[in-house]
Amino acid sequence: MHHRQPAFKALMGEARRGLQWLYQTQSDVLMLATTGTGGMEAAIINVASPGDRALVLTGGKFGQRWADVGEAFGLDVTRHEIAWGQAAVPDEVSATLDAMGDVHMVVITANETSTGTVHPTAEIVKRVRAHRPEAIIIVDAITALGVYDLPFDALDVDLMVCGSQKAFGLPPGLATIAVSERGWRAADAATLPRYFFDLRRERSAQAKNQTAFTSAISLTVGLCDVLEIMQARGLQALFAQQARLADAVRAGALALGMRLFSEAPSNSVTAVRVPEGVDPSALVTLLRDTYGVAIAGGQDHVKKTIVRLGHLGFIDDQDVLLTFMRLEKALRDLGVDTFEPAASLSAAARVLVR
Amino acid sequence: MHHRQPAFKALMGEARRGLQWLYQTQSDVLMLATTGTGGMEAAIINVASPGDRALVLTGGKFGQRWADVGEAFGLDVTRHEIAWGQAAVPDEVSATLDAMGDVHMVVITANETSTGTVHPTAEIVKRVRAHRPEAIIIVDAITALGVYDLPFDALDVDLMVCGSQKAFGLPPGLATIAVSERGWRAADAATLPRYFFDLRRERSAQAKNQTAFTSAISLTVGLCDVLEIMQARGLQALFAQQARLADAVRAGALALGMRLFSEAPSNSVTAVRVPEGVDPSALVTLLRDTYGVAIAGGQDHVKKTIVRLGHLGFIDDQDVLLTFMRLEKALRDLGVDTFEPAASLSAAARVLVR
Repeated sequence: MHHRQPAFKALMGEARRGLQWLYQTQSDVLMLATTGTGGMEAAIINVASPGDRALVLTGGKFGQRWADVGEAFGLDVTRHEIAWGQAAVPDEVSATLDAMGDVHMVVITANETSTGTVHPTAEIVKRVRAHRPEAIIIVDAITALGVYDLPFDALDVDLMVCGSQKAFGLPPGLATIAVSERGWRAADAATLPRYFFDLRRERSAQAKNQTAFTSAISLTVGLCDVLEIMQARGLQALFAQQARLADAVRAGALALGMRLFSEAPSNSVTAVRVPEGVDPSALVTLLRDTYGVAIAGGQDHVKKTIVRLGHLGFIDDQDVLLTFMRLEKALRDLGVDTFEPAASLSAAARVLVR
Repeated sequence: MHHRQPAFKALMGEARRGLQWLYQTQSDVLMLATTGTGGMEAAIINVASPGDRALVLTGGKFGQRWADVGEAFGLDVTRHEIAWGQAAVPDEVSATLDAMGDVHMVVITANETSTGTVHPTAEIVKRVRAHRPEAIIIVDAITALGVYDLPFDALDVDLMVCGSQKAFGLPPGLATIAVSERGWRAADAATLPRYFFDLRRERSAQAKNQTAFTSAISLTVGLCDVLEIMQARGLQALFAQQARLADAVRAGALALGMRLFSEAPSNSVTAVRVPEGVDPSALVTLLRDTYGVAIAGGQDHVKKTIVRLGHLGFIDDQDVLLTFMRLEKALRDLGVDTFEPAASLSAAARVLVR
C-alpha cells in the first residue's frame, strides 16, 4: 500500500478518529513517523522560541530528557527536581512557579517510566492554570495514554505525546501528538526552525488524511487495528484492566518480599527493589536467556537497585502469572529462598480472579 | 524484542556491517527512526550553521525539498535549477560554483524520483572538489543506493542518505545516513540546534550497537534480512538487475508509443508521458482499482503529463510483465488503440530474456 492511495487515506481517517477518542479530544491528533523522543522534540520546537522560560518536572530519566531537549533548543529551562520514585507534590510545583514568575511552558511527565511513578497530572495542571492561564502545558503521556484517564480537552492542556510501542503494543516508529487551539496559536508565534517536525504542515496534510511526508505505513495499519480493539473494550475498561494488572504485579512482588521502588506506583510499569544480594542485571539476564521472560533493569543511579516489570500493551493475565512462576525460579537460582513456593503466583492470582 | 537486548544489538551490528558494504565505506552508516525527509533534515542540520552558503541542485520535487529544508534552518541557499527531466550539466554546475564564490555545502540528488532522472553525481562531485576541496557534499541517495554504483569513500562525499522503503523494499520509517570524517568535523563546528537528529549522539550509541533513543525495531530486523539477500547477490548484480528491469520498462513503454519524460532516465523509476488524450490520474486509478497494479502519477506541473513506473525493491520480471499486460488493457479501456496487442510485453520480454 502506498501512502498516497485512497485505501491508505481511509486508514488515516480511521486512525485520526480513533486517536481523538483515546485522547478524548475534538482537537487534531497528529501522527509522526518518529519515536517518542522525536514526538517530544516536535512538541517543544513547535511552540517555543529561543530564550522562552520553561518549567520541566523531572523525577526520572524521561523528565530529564524533556529538560535536555528544551536546553538543546535554547530554552531557559527550570528543572523542578523530584526525587526518583516520588510523585510531584502540587504545592511544591506552585512554589516553583511563584519563584519563577513568568513562564511560557510547563512540561509534565504523566507517568515516569524509569521509576514506575505516576504523577498527579490533573492537579498540577490546575496549579499551572491558576498561576498562568495562558501557559503552554505539554503532557508526556507516552506510557500513560490508554492507562490513565487523561482527557485532553477536559484537562485543558496543549500538547500531549504518545508512542506506538506503549499502550498500542506496536513496534516503535510512530508518535502521536494532540495540539490544542492555544497550542496552534503558540505554533504560529514560535520562532524555532522546524521542517520534518513542523506540526502546522502536518495539520493541514492530515486534515486531508495524508501526512506531509512519507507515512509510517505499516504502523498506521497496525494502529487502526489496535484502536478498533481499544474502542470495542471502552476507555474505562482499558483503565480498569491496567489497574488490575498493576495490582496483581504489585501483589506478586510484595509476596516475594520485594519492595516497590515508587511511592506512587504506576499502572504501566512496576519498579521493584530486588532482594538483598541480588544483582538486577543478573536477574534480567537469567530471566531472559534461561526462562524466556523479558523484564527491564533500572537506569542510571538505580541500576543496581531495581528491576521493572512492564504491563502495557498486550500483556495479559497469563503473562503476569508466567512471569511470577519464572521469576520465582530465577530468584531461587540466584540464592533467594525467603519466600514460600508459589507465593507470588497466589498473590497475583488473588487479584486477577477478582 | 526490546532494543536494549543483546539479540537486538547483534542485529544492529549485522545491519551496520551490511550498510557499510552497500555504501562501500569504512565510515559510520547510522540508522535513524525516521523517513527519508527526516534523514534529509538530519544531514543538513548536523553540518551547518545559520547563514552558511549552500548550493542545492534542484531538478524536481526532491531537489526542491533539500533547498526548502536548508532555508527552513536559515541557510543561505542558492538553487541551481535544472529543467525537470533533464540531467544536471557539470559545466553549468561549475559555472554556478564560480559565481557563488565561497560555498559551505553542496547537495546533489543522485536520482530525482519525481522526474525519473539520474544525475551525474560522480562528475558533479569532481567539479565541487575542484572548486572547493573542503566543501561538505551531501548526496541524496534515497532512490539511488543499491541501484547505482555510488561508493561513498571513493566518491569522497560527506553525507549520503537513504530510506527503508526504496531499494530495501521495507515499510517506511528507517533512514540510513553515512558520514565522512570531514562530515564529523563539520558536525562539531555546526551550531544549528539538534537533539533527536543529533548524529554525534547516534554515532557513539551505534558504535555500541545501540541507538541513542528507541530503535525502529521491526524495520531493523527487516533490514538485516534484506542486506543478507543483497550481499548474497553482490553489488554489481544488484546494479545490473536494476539496469535490466529499467531497460525492460523503457522498452515496453516505448512499444506502446509513450515517450520517456526524462532525457537521463533512471534505473529506479521510469517516468513516461501518457498518450495524447489520456488523463494520468484516470490511468493510475483504473490500473489500481480495476487491475490491481500500482503505478504513480506525476507531481506539481507534470501531474497532467506523466505517470511513473517504479522498479525498485522487490520488483521483478513477473511484475514488469504483469504491469504491461494490465497497462495495455487499461489504455484500451481509456480509448488508446494505437499499439499492437502484446507489443509492450514482447518488447519488455525481449530485454528480460537477454
